Amino acid sequence: MKIIADENMPNAQRLFSHFGDVELVNGRSLTHEQVKSADVLLVRSVTKVTRELIEGSSVRFVGSATIGVDHIDLAYLSEHNIAFSSAPGCNADAVTDYVFSGLSHLYMTKGLRWLSKKIGIIGYGNVGKKVYERFAQLGCQVCVYDPLKMGSDSTVNFVSLNDVLACDVISLHAPLSRSGAYPTENMLAERELEALKPGVAIISAGRGGVINEDALIKKYQQLKGDMHLVLDVWHREPVINQQLVAIVDIATPHIAGYSKQGREKGSWMVYKALCQYLKQDICSERKQDAISSGAISVIEIKGEGCREEVLARSVQAIYDVARDDVRLRYKYREDKEKNVFDWLRKHYVERDELHTCFIHSNQADLSRLHDAIGFKSYNK
Amino acid sequence: MKIIADENMPNAQRLFSHFGDVELVNGRSLTHEQVKSADVLLVRSVTKVTRELIEGSSVRFVGSATIGVDHIDLAYLSEHNIAFSSAPGCNADAVTDYVFSGLSHLYMTKGLRWLSKKIGIIGYGNVGKKVYERFAQLGCQVCVYDPLKMGSDSTVNFVSLNDVLACDVISLHAPLSRSGAYPTENMLAERELEALKPGVAIISAGRGGVINEDALIKKYQQLKGDMHLVLDVWHREPVINQQLVAIVDIATPHIAGYSKQGREKGSWMVYKALCQYLKQDICSERKQDAISSGAISVIEIKGEGCREEVLARSVQAIYDVARDDVRLRYKYREDKEKNVFDWLRKHYVERDELHTCFIHSNQADLSRLHDAIGFKSYNK
Ligand SMILES: NC(=O)c1ccc[n+]([C@@H]2O[C@H](COP(=O)([O-])OP(=O)(O)OC[C@H]3O[C@@H](n4cnc5c(N)ncnc54)[C@H](O)[C@@H]3O)[C@@H](O)[C@H]2O)c1
Ligand SMILES: NC(=O)c1ccc[n+]([C@@H]2O[C@H](COP(=O)([O-])OP(=O)(O)OC[C@H]3O[C@@H](n4cnc5c(N)ncnc54)[C@H](O)[C@@H]3O)[C@@H](O)[C@H]2O)c1
Repeated sequence: MKIIADENMPNAQRLFSHFGDVELVNGRSLTHEQVKSADVLLVRSVTKVTRELIEGSSVRFVGSATIGVDHIDLAYLSEHNIAFSSAPGCNADAVTDYVFSGLSHLYMTKGLRWLSKKIGIIGYGNVGKKVYERFAQLGCQVCVYDPLKMGSDSTVNFVSLNDVLACDVISLHAPLSRSGAYPTENMLAERELEALKPGVAIISAGRGGVINEDALIKKYQQLKGDMHLVLDVWHREPVINQQLVAIVDIATPHIAGYSKQGREKGSWMVYKALCQYLKQDICSERKQDAISSGAISVIEIKGEGCREEVLARSVQAIYDVARDDVRLRYKYREDKEKNVFDWLRKHYVERDELHTCFIHSNQADLSRLHDAIGFKSYNK
Repeated sequence: MKIIADENMPNAQRLFSHFGDVELVNGRSLTHEQVKSADVLLVRSVTKVTRELIEGSSVRFVGSATIGVDHIDLAYLSEHNIAFSSAPGCNADAVTDYVFSGLSHLYMTKGLRWLSKKIGIIGYGNVGKKVYERFAQLGCQVCVYDPLKMGSDSTVNFVSLNDVLACDVISLHAPLSRSGAYPTENMLAERELEALKPGVAIISAGRGGVINEDALIKKYQQLKGDMHLVLDVWHREPVINQQLVAIVDIATPHIAGYSKQGREKGSWMVYKALCQYLKQDICSERKQDAISSGAISVIEIKGEGCREEVLARSVQAIYDVARDDVRLRYKYREDKEKNVFDWLRKHYVERDELHTCFIHSNQADLSRLHDAIGFKSYNK
């Protein structure tokens, strides 16, 4: 069996070579010629999998190690009975870590005591669900708006959009959609933002275009700046509204999902899908090899100070959003001409996920909180 | 014995109550009336110890738990045979940590491989010596310019100012002086900055006014931005040159010396001096109580990646200068009217010193490097 894989797909050789010959290629410049004799094609989002690329080839399985499918001609694949699998949710932990790093930053720089606040989430998909669960496990009062999932699980506190907008912390994880019963584009425009409370914190790591940026700036001015903003996604990416950058606490270049283990989970999920397609057993031991441990494997904490502080020091030890913010602002000052946004994404300083680190504390209560926020506690 | 102590002096009760009654006071509003019947007066830099404050009082010992003496009328004290002691060097570790956090940031955001670079230091006092020693222990090629110390220690690589200016990394730790044989004011002006190499990194955590800021901006433009700048001190503090802020990698509000343990060491040093003055034994066991352990007491690392990366992940886990930079820039955007600079210093998010954390690694080489940069390694 011949397998063509993007060279930027982590662990491609390690995971797939027992199925057959693995050839690593540059995903950006992939040609029909290269794909022609392949049985399996493994890509990331930079490769457009079109009719032109695979028509007349021997490809029977396409895997994409990323969450999106915009780069795949799904209709063509299904018409021609070519199996397809992507990696939905592979970066959900990364984005969830981003949310808590954002809140940790707001505590450390502005004293935001978020643990006792009302938390509202928009979108209960792969990411929103993880974010919801961590808040719930932390003991926060949390609710979520997702009209398409509403009622799907009676243990989840589904509420109306208005209820979410009345929260103290709002975390956005809806996709961008223009059609259907609940299009999200411009979903938070002037009228909706009216409802926001002074002192609200908004974390936006879903898709730009869901919030109307002009309305957000206006609301910020109305509230005389009494608002906390952590933004990872922007309306007109890769161009970002500098007027908005100027007022937010944290501005990052759509990297909330960029973790080392997230990319690796992408490969792992495609590996599992290919096993299923080939009716082979999934070799779970491989997972340990395929998902890296972190640079910092254990942290022992003393646990003094309020809980937000203790959590912030642990979270920031693994990932501090401030670094990405400083880097973005510096790069834009230094270089206004080039496509800074894409450059920053391409040269991202990779980070580990919180769950790669064990937290050791001698207070059961703190172990529980660290487990809840995404770490592992030492004795587990 | 009656002791009056600033309420912001850490551990004042714990360290001094066995000498006599300790009364805690607001150092900013201290009056002669309050001081009159005291034997010992313990202050921080906010209290001006003038003739007016202590004339006619019973004060025989004045201690200041900070490094500066600008707030003390030393002439009056010595004329009246009042003993005085301050805490020189109490914040030297904190500043040295700042230097390495700055370099870690430059590695993480711009890939600066500083370990193999030529390092030049200006000023070999309490801070400069510590900075020098850590670089030397890290195995870096390091030299220092200090005309007043030159030749005082043959193991130290003292060089000329020109030699330091030809280095790749320059760390400034000279005080501000306008007189004497080697005044430092404007010491790095246009002519001196001429000598700087493209790609140079400058860390300035001594005193503003040593570098000519206009000349620095000019040089930055000449080098087309090929320069790394980490600035903690500014010429016209508390007003800072926003044109300069706009081009530096890291801008912080004169907080390089602000660590929890640094403040505690200030009290500890004054305690030792008072013991000596009173001809009492110094109770060394008290030191453990008086200098806090850190929020993160142990970090276990994997040690993959280049050494700069491994060190950066450990250093940033304890203190990342990026946080202070984000906070400064945010505060200036949010609030242009008030005295942002002093507000930031007053509301500083306190940090721990690197030596409060043990690093556990299974590579002897990495333990050595972490020891050198200021941590303790696990098995020591
Ligand atoms: N910033 C990043 O780096 C990053 C990383 C991962 C995902 N994302 C983005 O975040 C979004 C969520 O990702 P996901 O993996 O959870 O996707 P998903 O498809 O699993 O979940 C999306 C959820 O949003 C819900 N939804 C749809 N319309 C809605 C509406 N009008 N109001 C509220 N909810 C609505 C859906 O019902 C679904 O539950 C996606 O757009 C994704 O592209 C961004
Ligand atoms: N940024 C901060 O938060 C922070 C914290 C601590 C100290 N500082 C400042 O850093 C400076 C150094 O602190 P320190 O505790 O090491 O002081 P120090 O007095 O112990 O050392 C100063 C050294 O500079 C040397 N020096 C004097 N003139 C010089 C010249 N022309 N060229 C080179 N060297 C010269 C002196 O000989 C001395 O060795 C001080 O000005 C102090 O105020 C800043």
